[in-house]
Amino acid sequence: MDIKAAMAEMGRAARDAARIVAAASVAQRNDALLQIRQALAADRENILAANERDLEAGRENGLDAALLDRLAVNAARLDVLEEGLAQVAALPDPIGQISDERGMPSGITVGTMRVPLGVIGMIYESRPNVTIEAASLCLKAGNAVILRGGSEAIHSNTALGQSLANGLSAAGLPVDAAQVVPMVDRAAVGALLTMPEYIDLIVPRGGKGLIERVMAESQVAILKHLDGICHVYIDTEADPDKAHRIAFNAKTQRYGTCNTMETLLIAKAQTGMLPALVAALQEEGVEVRGCDDTRAAAPAISVTATDADWSTEYLAPILSIKVVDGVDEAMAHIAQYSSSHTESIVTENAETAARFLREVDSGSVMHNASTRFADGFEYGLGAEIGISTGKLHARGPVGLEGLTSRKYIVRGDGHIRQ
Amino acid sequence: MDIKAAMAEMGRAARDAARIVAAASVAQRNDALLQIRQALAADRENILAANERDLEAGRENGLDAALLDRLAVNAARLDVLEEGLAQVAALPDPIGQISDERGMPSGITVGTMRVPLGVIGMIYESRPNVTIEAASLCLKAGNAVILRGGSEAIHSNTALGQSLANGLSAAGLPVDAAQVVPMVDRAAVGALLTMPEYIDLIVPRGGKGLIERVMAESQVAILKHLDGICHVYIDTEADPDKAHRIAFNAKTQRYGTCNTMETLLIAKAQTGMLPALVAALQEEGVEVRGCDDTRAAAPAISVTATDADWSTEYLAPILSIKVVDGVDEAMAHIAQYSSSHTESIVTENAETAARFLREVDSGSVMHNASTRFADGFEYGLGAEIGISTGKLHARGPVGLEGLTSRKYIVRGDGHIRQ
Repeated sequence: MDIKAAMAEMGRAARDAARIVAAASVAQRNDALLQIRQALAADRENILAANERDLEAGRENGLDAALLDRLAVNAARLDVLEEGLAQVAALPDPIGQISDERGMPSGITVGTMRVPLGVIGMIYESRPNVTIEAASLCLKAGNAVILRGGSEAIHSNTALGQSLANGLSAAGLPVDAAQVVPMVDRAAVGALLTMPEYIDLIVPRGGKGLIERVMAESQVAILKHLDGICHVYIDTEADPDKAHRIAFNAKTQRYGTCNTMETLLIAKAQTGMLPALVAALQEEGVEVRGCDDTRAAAPAISVTATDADWSTEYLAPILSIKVVDGVDEAMAHIAQYSSSHTESIVTENAETAARFLREVDSGSVMHNASTRFADGFEYGLGAEIGISTGKLHARGPVGLEGLTSRKYIVRGDGHIRQ
Repeated sequence: MDIKAAMAEMGRAARDAARIVAAASVAQRNDALLQIRQALAADRENILAANERDLEAGRENGLDAALLDRLAVNAARLDVLEEGLAQVAALPDPIGQISDERGMPSGITVGTMRVPLGVIGMIYESRPNVTIEAASLCLKAGNAVILRGGSEAIHSNTALGQSLANGLSAAGLPVDAAQVVPMVDRAAVGALLTMPEYIDLIVPRGGKGLIERVMAESQVAILKHLDGICHVYIDTEADPDKAHRIAFNAKTQRYGTCNTMETLLIAKAQTGMLPALVAALQEEGVEVRGCDDTRAAAPAISVTATDADWSTEYLAPILSIKVVDGVDEAMAHIAQYSSSHTESIVTENAETAARFLREVDSGSVMHNASTRFADGFEYGLGAEIGISTGKLHARGPVGLEGLTSRKYIVRGDGHIRQ
């Protein structure tokens, strides 16, 4: 079979389906989500059996315990998916609103309407629940979606895709509005990335290898973050208690998340707080690495941080600490090493905070708060399709709005240009 | 000289300058625009002499009269540029505002701040005035810019670039914030398109050949429109007077602009108005081509429109007309042939208008108004860097806001994630 042709066929079908979904009422789109929920419940046996086949193959192929856990679908996880569909259905309709409408000197009125993007291409690994979560957000925002999960989850994703089709059908929407790619061949990903005539946005979810491949090959715009090298800067005028609390939380509340602090910058004047902070981190099991000034202030640190540390997203209980002169050196370090994800300043000086908030060029910039707050749910978005470290279209945690576009709406009464 | 290395050096310098411009106050950015205005006045002799060299070379190379006119810089055109700089300086600051700030259940507040994009790459042809116009908008929005005009305008652009540098210097901003590429080699464009580490957005301005080359080669996001195949649809329930007026204006007010109507769709029930409309267009010098139904209704048409007509942006006094059953067939035709620039419906039926406004997927969708209104100044944007037919980031006429990004601003008082 010609994979490129098969993918183009899926793209064409998705494009046609997208027009129908975009024109559907919010009641019909919400109904589709609730019908998919019912289909998931009805198809449980089939889904669990398909997942068992993936798990067996995974064990045979020597997948480690963490990967097998991510691959697993069970009754509890299906409960979460069903609950999630109901929650997305209950969210406000992100499309159709006209805003900023105002009259112009020519007599026309001009406003903008939020509209669906069109066709989304999701590329992800391991976790089959992404199939349902991503499809629900795309459909809620009036889009069609093509879903390409990992080959290790092909049976699970195909079964979940059948539930998507069953639900769409029951709601009277085209099944091509949410298609799971049936081919495991990696060439299918390449094809998906090179059909801008059918795909409006690619959303990759996975490890750095996946993201880098997508970035290198894609001819379609990508909503992605590659790294989360997040910084907390403890300013000369920080409250030491808040600083200790925020730094400890930003590192230890979870280690494997992209909004976890990887480097702590601390003003020279504050190094007196380092011994207690380092002790608390070490007691929690964090390996602390420091620059020379850090190690001088906290002799319990036995590893010197190198240039490689400032550029590394550990995703692990490791923290590098650097002593800086003040906010200028901190911002220069961030400009050089940050992945533009999330940075936070701890200070009681409102002017210093305002400078940091304005000048640091990251998706989320914080004052006296833990970087761990950088999250669509914590920001009140109601849902999160991903976090963007790019500066165009959507930035930071991305909810339903990131899956939409805007267009100008112009009204006249026979008006012509003079 | 290694062009790639030289362009990378310009990119690095622009990136450093961008941080300084982004941190500058609006007063300083506005001062830079007014200083550039003064520099232009002081450098007039030099600019006109440089332009004379380009014009001479153009004449020797056999450029036609239209191209030589576009290439020409004279006192009147410099007056317009100087006035434009004052106007851009007077526009509201597009950056720094925090909006939608609200408290979350966790205790943090979350809002978004509008911030500069970073470094813009402008690629354009012939008209040297773009050098000043584009630089003024980029600087106003807090960005740095690298300007790459056509080789035929190299002396003019270099002289204008000197005025940019003089003005930036006088305002205490880095001259690298607005750099004119000194190399005429086409490889410089290729280099500019392939350094995403230094360039945040490419804005091409020119003919279809230029845009297609940029689209094919760019690794950086592009703000562009390729075609303007704009439609007016005269609905079954249109007011014939408004329909005649709008169709005539949309075609004849200017022929060479991207928002000019290229295809008129007309409901079967309205074909009675065709003879008068066609006569008016033909009297104005417009060649009218029609489908068989159109020719049957208006025998004065002697050319049958073919499939190629529906896909052509004439940019000339030519119009193709197609009779359709009603709004569904009109929207299907638009979905197939439109370049997603601007479409307008003429109807007195509010429900039909609402469907058209919602379902037609173009940058500007209009009701009872001429497509010629699709323009940044007519929309009250105060300025226009271009028109985007893409759906991401910016769509339709793009003003200063399209040269900015947003980031999340989070404030707490020692808040940590539970």
